[in-house]
Amino acid sequence: MAAHPLSLLLILLLGVLLPCGDSKFIAYNTSHGVVPGKLNVHLVPHSHDDVGWLKTIDQYYVGSNNSIQGACVENVLDSLVTALLSNPDRKFIYVEQAFFQRWWGDQSEIIQGLVRKFISSGQLELINGGMCMHDEATSHYIDMIDQTTLGHRFIKNEFNLTPRIGWQIDPFGHSAVQAYLLGAEVGFDSIFFARIDYQDRAKRKDEKSLEVIWQGSRTFGSSSQIFAGAFPENYEPPPGGFYYEVNDDSPIVQDNIKLFDYNVPDRVNAFVEAAIAQANITRTNHIMWTMGTDFKYQYANSWFRQMDKLIHYVNLDGRVNALYSTPSIYTDAKHAASESWPLKTDDYFPYADRINAYWTGYFTSRAGLKGYVRMMSSYYLAARQLEFFKGRNESGPTTDSLADALAIVQHHDAVTGTEKQHVSDDYAKRLSIGYKEAEEVVAASISCITGSGCGSSITKFEQCPLLNISYCPPSEIDLSQGKNLVVVVYNSLGWKREDVVRIPVLSENVVVRDSSGKEIESQILPLANAYVGIRNYYVMAHLGKIPAVTPQYWLAFSASVPPLGLSTYFISKANRKASTSMQTLFKATGSATDTIAVGPGNLKLIYSENEGKLVGYINTRSRINASMEQSYRYYTGNDGSADKKVIPQASGAYVFRPNGSYPIKSEEQGAFTVLRGPVLDEVHQRINSWISQITRVYKGKEHAEVEFTIGPIPIDDGQGKEVVADITTAMKSNKTFYTDSSGRDFIERIRDYRKDWHLEVNQPVAGNYYPLNLGIFMKDDSTELSMLVDRAVGGSSIVDGQLELMLHRRLVHDDSRGVAEALNETVCAFDKCAGLTVQGKFFLRIDPLGEGAKWRRSFGQEIYSPFLLAFTEQDGKEWTSPRVSTFSGLDPSYSLPDNVAMITLQELEDGKVLLRLAHLYEVGEDKDLSVMASVELKKLFPNKKISSAEEMSLSANQGRAEMEKKRLVWKAEGSPQGAKAARGGAVDPAGLVVELGPMEIRTFVISFL
Amino acid sequence: MAAHPLSLLLILLLGVLLPCGDSKFIAYNTSHGVVPGKLNVHLVPHSHDDVGWLKTIDQYYVGSNNSIQGACVENVLDSLVTALLSNPDRKFIYVEQAFFQRWWGDQSEIIQGLVRKFISSGQLELINGGMCMHDEATSHYIDMIDQTTLGHRFIKNEFNLTPRIGWQIDPFGHSAVQAYLLGAEVGFDSIFFARIDYQDRAKRKDEKSLEVIWQGSRTFGSSSQIFAGAFPENYEPPPGGFYYEVNDDSPIVQDNIKLFDYNVPDRVNAFVEAAIAQANITRTNHIMWTMGTDFKYQYANSWFRQMDKLIHYVNLDGRVNALYSTPSIYTDAKHAASESWPLKTDDYFPYADRINAYWTGYFTSRAGLKGYVRMMSSYYLAARQLEFFKGRNESGPTTDSLADALAIVQHHDAVTGTEKQHVSDDYAKRLSIGYKEAEEVVAASISCITGSGCGSSITKFEQCPLLNISYCPPSEIDLSQGKNLVVVVYNSLGWKREDVVRIPVLSENVVVRDSSGKEIESQILPLANAYVGIRNYYVMAHLGKIPAVTPQYWLAFSASVPPLGLSTYFISKANRKASTSMQTLFKATGSATDTIAVGPGNLKLIYSENEGKLVGYINTRSRINASMEQSYRYYTGNDGSADKKVIPQASGAYVFRPNGSYPIKSEEQGAFTVLRGPVLDEVHQRINSWISQITRVYKGKEHAEVEFTIGPIPIDDGQGKEVVADITTAMKSNKTFYTDSSGRDFIERIRDYRKDWHLEVNQPVAGNYYPLNLGIFMKDDSTELSMLVDRAVGGSSIVDGQLELMLHRRLVHDDSRGVAEALNETVCAFDKCAGLTVQGKFFLRIDPLGEGAKWRRSFGQEIYSPFLLAFTEQDGKEWTSPRVSTFSGLDPSYSLPDNVAMITLQELEDGKVLLRLAHLYEVGEDKDLSVMASVELKKLFPNKKISSAEEMSLSANQGRAEMEKKRLVWKAEGSPQGAKAARGGAVDPAGLVVELGPMEIRTFVISFL
Repeated sequence: MAAHPLSLLLILLLGVLLPCGDSKFIAYNTSHGVVPGKLNVHLVPHSHDDVGWLKTIDQYYVGSNNSIQGACVENVLDSLVTALLSNPDRKFIYVEQAFFQRWWGDQSEIIQGLVRKFISSGQLELINGGMCMHDEATSHYIDMIDQTTLGHRFIKNEFNLTPRIGWQIDPFGHSAVQAYLLGAEVGFDSIFFARIDYQDRAKRKDEKSLEVIWQGSRTFGSSSQIFAGAFPENYEPPPGGFYYEVNDDSPIVQDNIKLFDYNVPDRVNAFVEAAIAQANITRTNHIMWTMGTDFKYQYANSWFRQMDKLIHYVNLDGRVNALYSTPSIYTDAKHAASESWPLKTDDYFPYADRINAYWTGYFTSRAGLKGYVRMMSSYYLAARQLEFFKGRNESGPTTDSLADALAIVQHHDAVTGTEKQHVSDDYAKRLSIGYKEAEEVVAASISCITGSGCGSSITKFEQCPLLNISYCPPSEIDLSQGKNLVVVVYNSLGWKREDVVRIPVLSENVVVRDSSGKEIESQILPLANAYVGIRNYYVMAHLGKIPAVTPQYWLAFSASVPPLGLSTYFISKANRKASTSMQTLFKATGSATDTIAVGPGNLKLIYSENEGKLVGYINTRSRINASMEQSYRYYTGNDGSADKKVIPQASGAYVFRPNGSYPIKSEEQGAFTVLRGPVLDEVHQRINSWISQITRVYKGKEHAEVEFTIGPIPIDDGQGKEVVADITTAMKSNKTFYTDSSGRDFIERIRDYRKDWHLEVNQPVAGNYYPLNLGIFMKDDSTELSMLVDRAVGGSSIVDGQLELMLHRRLVHDDSRGVAEALNETVCAFDKCAGLTVQGKFFLRIDPLGEGAKWRRSFGQEIYSPFLLAFTEQDGKEWTSPRVSTFSGLDPSYSLPDNVAMITLQELEDGKVLLRLAHLYEVGEDKDLSVMASVELKKLFPNKKISSAEEMSLSANQGRAEMEKKRLVWKAEGSPQGAKAARGGAVDPAGLVVELGPMEIRTFVISFL
Repeated sequence: MAAHPLSLLLILLLGVLLPCGDSKFIAYNTSHGVVPGKLNVHLVPHSHDDVGWLKTIDQYYVGSNNSIQGACVENVLDSLVTALLSNPDRKFIYVEQAFFQRWWGDQSEIIQGLVRKFISSGQLELINGGMCMHDEATSHYIDMIDQTTLGHRFIKNEFNLTPRIGWQIDPFGHSAVQAYLLGAEVGFDSIFFARIDYQDRAKRKDEKSLEVIWQGSRTFGSSSQIFAGAFPENYEPPPGGFYYEVNDDSPIVQDNIKLFDYNVPDRVNAFVEAAIAQANITRTNHIMWTMGTDFKYQYANSWFRQMDKLIHYVNLDGRVNALYSTPSIYTDAKHAASESWPLKTDDYFPYADRINAYWTGYFTSRAGLKGYVRMMSSYYLAARQLEFFKGRNESGPTTDSLADALAIVQHHDAVTGTEKQHVSDDYAKRLSIGYKEAEEVVAASISCITGSGCGSSITKFEQCPLLNISYCPPSEIDLSQGKNLVVVVYNSLGWKREDVVRIPVLSENVVVRDSSGKEIESQILPLANAYVGIRNYYVMAHLGKIPAVTPQYWLAFSASVPPLGLSTYFISKANRKASTSMQTLFKATGSATDTIAVGPGNLKLIYSENEGKLVGYINTRSRINASMEQSYRYYTGNDGSADKKVIPQASGAYVFRPNGSYPIKSEEQGAFTVLRGPVLDEVHQRINSWISQITRVYKGKEHAEVEFTIGPIPIDDGQGKEVVADITTAMKSNKTFYTDSSGRDFIERIRDYRKDWHLEVNQPVAGNYYPLNLGIFMKDDSTELSMLVDRAVGGSSIVDGQLELMLHRRLVHDDSRGVAEALNETVCAFDKCAGLTVQGKFFLRIDPLGEGAKWRRSFGQEIYSPFLLAFTEQDGKEWTSPRVSTFSGLDPSYSLPDNVAMITLQELEDGKVLLRLAHLYEVGEDKDLSVMASVELKKLFPNKKISSAEEMSLSANQGRAEMEKKRLVWKAEGSPQGAKAARGGAVDPAGLVVELGPMEIRTFVISFL
């Protein structure tokens, strides 16, 4: 390569900095900061780069597949370097770390050096800072924390910086957990977003209350508040033509008097007009202009050139002050104004952007993907624990790629189900790749822990990610040769736990022994033929092969596992004595009074034989006796064709807009089959040709589990359908119900009502839907009915006494929000494609009033973290040989308090450990458990010596104390802000006991000697 | 402003140059040159930036009006700087100087410094180098030379460089004059273009003859030849997906193995495939890929990033060699191959891009604009002469803005008429602005020359640019107060000249006196009412006012003016003796034999009274007696609706596709009016309600002049119409006719025939149309009939013995070539809009065989350069006072030879003079005048002392000798290349006599002592 005129480079920038000799060249003055006493227009250059939507994340990054959408993040960041270099006043914020990290890795050290300078000088500010801009309705708070931590720690490690600002500009409504947990507890001083209900927005504009102090937590109140700003319209430039992407058609500033169409006065006037319009709905003399939108700044200079001119000429004009700014500068200016701000509590759900357009469909869209995400989330939590026990191996397989995939899928067009099908497939593929690597970590760790070999000579422990469709090759083996199937059951919870394990087996003649060799109670359940079809179809679809064998049975047994530990069970051939389930088929008898009770323990579900359905719920211990029905319905998706005076709105991936509600009647006259046994009872019901369910009542449990199988939803009538399950009781719930926020705090919901404004009801169903990650409950004078879910779903109570969950959606129209595909998921195998069948579970229980939280919280944790099963084979003679068959990661005498969960245990790259402990109860939620809890750190690491336990911010990118010190103090209008929240005190370095107040999550980086 | 990390800038580039420490960053090797023995793929990055088309030039430059077309040249050049800086192997060519000069003036000295380095290192090559990529069908060669000179001299002055390559990639067919004159004589070593007839292209691909040695001139043969390459398809990247503009949907090269969709092998294969496909139709192992298209490289890096990768990986693959290249490098490689190339003569007209799609409509489209351009071209030539006589005043008004406007309007979507209406208006506005300034120069110079005041105390000489619509306020004055109207008549030709001057006057009682005070013969002609309507409407449309007075008469008199000089005439009130025209109205008599002869001199036009039309042509001197008819027809524009198996093709701004031909019959039974007088005879005919004409025969002239007024063409029947004038004779022209190339060489045309391939005739009319700038003629055994035109028009001979000119077009469909407007010009005034009326002239004459050239050449020059008139008033007593009333810029005894025209006389910024002398005759064209001519330079500058006369290349950017020395010598296949062309010898510095061989144009820069 030829040498280059380097000397010229030296002065490239000087051309901008120095007054120029050539009178024709215009040097723009863009150095303006905030000017007191003037209206300050903070221009915030940004690009909103979806981490997958119409294209996959990698396609967006490299700019491929542009026929779908012209978008290339590499362009954005590449061109930004030059744009920032050529004028040091220019600023930019970058948000999505998934893209930033891809780009960072591609850069030369020189470019990296430049970017470091931009970051340290504040020209480039990394805000929000998670891998993606996560969704707030369908993301679980643990996933939100993990994905934020991943991004924040990268920023900390690489740049020694902590993002200050939450920037959730696109998610479709905003959760309380985002405000107080992923906002305040992360150390953010403010959070900004664009999408709030159109009625809410109108009122807030009137009242200048778009910007508020948001206290998202009832428990924490002002101790975990944040300055929150909703934008006046969207996250784009203001009305008046200020879009400057290459080829945008906004009028550019033409300031060359030698050319035609000089328009500086026009553009300055337009700027001032737009500024004043916004000032009229904003408190203080600071307004923010979000200068960008989706995937803009592909040639960054095209924006900056115009903004340079606008700042220059607007400030020459002098009516307002325009400046390059960032949300941080804007936040500081707002704070400096010493204003009191309106107080906002709860959340911003549901979101409608106009009449009839409630974005409540996405709470359920792609129920299969949502289920997979939750399953992987749980697996990641467990796998990190096991990775820690084994010791992280930088060169070997790690959980990192699963972490990355999980982080990306929290994006607000990923787990939401609002992406194109091929992009959804890409997320699933990433999860699957991440899972496969994590599976190796898990297998290796179990091998180590169980003494089956460590390092290079490990025993192969197989796992069964397709167990939900009864596909588990390692358990489907012929045990007749004297072999034992070894089942390792891992419990990632911090409590000892008993739960029923179910695995497919080839023969009913098997017995289960515990690690002491003692045969334990087990139960054989037939694998219904209907499920074999699904099994074969989906194994073919996922793995490209037909299962080699077809197991005839499920084997169920109750496993007992220590906290953060494992137990081993041994299954071998033997003639069973009894304990095969008793199977009875019930058909309508004609007698209206015949009922049967199902359930081997305290809980009895009462079924009407005649009607073939559930009619009652009895708990003999708590003396609950309630009438209860369970049924399915579907809403038909509105196609919008009847809209005359408004923009047509169909039901689609985002928007739920029902056209009618249709009960699903059993096609088989209510026939159902009951299987009874020592471990559990099952009620098998075929609701119609495309819905079936199994209701399970376990001996030791007081809830019912409903496993539904829904699909393919027929659309041959041209109608999209959105399937809901109803639980109907006689409870007088008075329009009121409760749904969780991102899987954590429960928020009171009142039908057809909003706390913040007088609701005009135009969608009496869709407008009352809320996102569930944990569950939903309602109360009357004496009882509370809770339903918990295994994934994100939408739910509501449209009728008093009734709760409904939307479980699956298949639609035939696009809902005009950009995805440009109908939500019509299909699965292809055997040369045909069929609508997606979704299998999942929900759980329900009635408790005496005030006692439901225990189940919701503790069992909710169990739903999130089911047992992790691993399998291996043994020759018969070996199975009794000495090995570690029971293990706990904690001190043997120790388990976490009932109100505390360990939501993160992760070995970091430097050998330290990231630990997060979460109090599970809100203040006042449970009389016993909504209290301060204590955790002894030493007992959590029995074999290690803790040298320090540094308490960190939630995303572990700064010391907690440092964070608190920096935090801006905001004043909310009106009433005093209540009692101080109870939080745990500082951790004594000697005692190392961590206290946790209600709802508190404390994050530590633990170092060992 | 804050200080900036300059130290980092130092090493910005090093990041590319040095091997990088970070293994993830990929440094691409793009340093490859030509590799002998391999197929070399020359990647030529370029952007084709129309100097106006859908948007105006300024809108394209600054990137406004993007709703019409996303295009911003400022982006292209801005982003190029960084792209070239970051990799010194990258190359780019820039073509349109109108844009480049706008940009250059906006840059800081720093950026200018960088760009100078790019240019001197060859990273950035300025090619073609004119202000625009001029059209080759509707641009006059003088305009082509001027606009090229303007660009080339800027490049020479600013960068001391001379463009080597012609790059006419978009014009719609290619003229012989472009090849030999604007190509070879400019010093180009090659010329490249994309648009040749689809049938021609197919054959040339088969025969590997897309690249040829083009000898455009019959006269010069191999002495003015050029290597000419037609691209295989267009000027875009080859098929296979190699478009890399931001948001383009070609597959990018995804070479990041950490991401999904790695596709390096795929893209390398696609590259090699495309290269081999092109190699199969190309001679030598060099092929050129035109990497760009219209207004691309708005973010230059998006192309270069992909090309960096392609070069890197393709060369690693090794099957072909890819390199950054330019047309210069490519040309040198072609030349180095020492190949003999197919010989191409004549031109590439007409152009069809597919069946039924002959781009021959634009030869006439926007006939009004074309007329205005020609008028301004002529004015510019004269104004520069007058500017020189006065002395150029850098601070005062100059002819520069007219030069600039004229240069821009030569663009191939400007004078062609293929731009949008608002863009056409913009060109006209620029011409008008340029004219207004040049008018001041002219007025000041005339004031100086005539001794009416120089410098600050000049007499105001007014001019009449709207004289064509009989609007001339300075002549429309009341002379009753004893005033004289002074008419200065300027002749820009190098010969003494007599011609008739016509001006509107208020009264018939006026007399004309010459500068000696002698009354000269004059004639009064009534101003017909029909023309008053047009006058008022268009004055209102152009000037926004109604004329203050309405003149009743034209005053005509014959003026005699010295070469490059002026004469003054004085008009005053006096009772006329006779000499008002005798006016006779003829109506059909019923007798088939009554004819009348019109014409005061040797030429008699014979009209049939009964038929009301021309029937014969008699020249009493040359004894020509021919039958001749003249009539109008229109073609209806095809709307393409009947196209079934092919792409629908309508007639439009580009494409001429008639649907039928309809004669226009007189609505008034052939009534016509004859005006006779001493100066001229006129025949007034109203052909129909929207066509009228005046045929003039002047006393001293042997041609007929037809002034037509056409419009508004009615389209209320939904039919577009394309109006032609036919001249029909009994000549046996044997399918053969001759049309000029860009106003210079005449080329033989044979109906339904092409020299280069066997023509499949699908459009027997449109496919035989050719562009005319000078005229058209046909021959038989004894005579030749010539028609000359006053602007660019299309013409043909579709029937033996008949010539036709297309004079005006109004169409109702777009022809699908991008302009997206029907060619439906309207003019608005008095709150209504009407279709454009076009007024123009054509001229015809029959000569004995072999004698027509004299008229075509000499009178052709007079048509191009009509008298320039300037007016002032005098009090009666003053008019005889001594002043300079006659002037010649030449030595009083001298005029140019009859076969030589002075096509440029211009004072340059440094006081030197640019002089161009053009021999007007081809070899063998005229027995007397196709000979070597001599011009005595000293006689051209009688009052100055020439210190040197440096002969230059045609565009005056290098010495002629230097150019000849550098010129590449190419070998053409086949026959020896004929006798050496006769060219004038070197100019003896003492004698300073310039010899000019036939067709020779010699360019000098003259310095004075």
